[in-house]
Amino acid sequence: MIIEEMTPAECFELLQQTGFGRLGCARSGQPYVVPIYFAADKDHIYGFSTLGKKIEWMRANPLVCVEVDEIISHAQWRSVVAVGRYQELPDELQGASVRNHAHSLLQKRANWWEPGYVLSTHRGKPHSAEPIFYRIRIDEITGHRAQPDKHELATMSRPLESHRPESWLARWIHRATP
Amino acid sequence: MIIEEMTPAECFELLQQTGFGRLGCARSGQPYVVPIYFAADKDHIYGFSTLGKKIEWMRANPLVCVEVDEIISHAQWRSVVAVGRYQELPDELQGASVRNHAHSLLQKRANWWEPGYVLSTHRGKPHSAEPIFYRIRIDEITGHRAQPDKHELATMSRPLESHRPESWLARWIHRATP
Repeated sequence: MIIEEMTPAECFELLQQTGFGRLGCARSGQPYVVPIYFAADKDHIYGFSTLGKKIEWMRANPLVCVEVDEIISHAQWRSVVAVGRYQELPDELQGASVRNHAHSLLQKRANWWEPGYVLSTHRGKPHSAEPIFYRIRIDEITGHRAQPDKHELATMSRPLESHRPESWLARWIHRATP
Repeated sequence: MIIEEMTPAECFELLQQTGFGRLGCARSGQPYVVPIYFAADKDHIYGFSTLGKKIEWMRANPLVCVEVDEIISHAQWRSVVAVGRYQELPDELQGASVRNHAHSLLQKRANWWEPGYVLSTHRGKPHSAEPIFYRIRIDEITGHRAQPDKHELATMSRPLESHRPESWLARWIHRATP
């Protein structure tokens, strides 16, 4: 497998293509990870949710991480990690322009609003909470792309015995065995 | 959409079925999320990796979170979140039994070892690091399952205008507009 770093432009392209990833937040040293749908531009990730654990945690600690990946096979994948800062988009924030921009990005996704909006609808009870719009200001973005190398391509059709790290695995298991 | 809580048994079933998820760790309040392959039993998640950012962070703060999901559609999905504590499995820990158990779980997955093992192989350079085996002691596991409700099933073939929360979305966008 050949793993290469992705450029920031390639990272943003994957964010925008997928619009789905995992959001990590943390409180008192305990991380918490949930799936989210979002829209993104070059500087921000936009999403929304009803009030719940992740919003409460991000209000308490705005440092967050969004991970997005595309896994085609074990040897062919892309993974992007963006770290940044949670910002709520209340009505008064920066006037209409931020809201209009967020809306124009978010509405491009069919049903983009649905998972975040109905997540508080349990067992058919209607939700009552007002949705909370937020954005994540991206402070750093990194990504990696994996592709099979020539050796792997050549050996993909036969058993992978030669690849298996069984010598060290066996050593690890049996070392220190009484 | 009807969202129901999953039982702990159903959560473990999804963990074991998928063997793939996202690991969240945190340092100084900053969360970090990466994809991982793993094996699981009722009490632990087992994985391995070469030395890198996630191992360094988990050594510094063993509080972690593993999220696993299965997304069939916006209205049909399962998501499980396990929180727990990182433990390295060095040669001397608890003798051979833990290692044998980890190995028997891990080797059931074809190529289970590959992504963690070669992740340090960049641009074709061979890795030199010894693999680090770890487990995560699961302290709490929760999960949710979503299914379309009757109304959604009935309206799935026609435009979702009646579902769209456009009234509040429009209000949110235009409220406070000068």
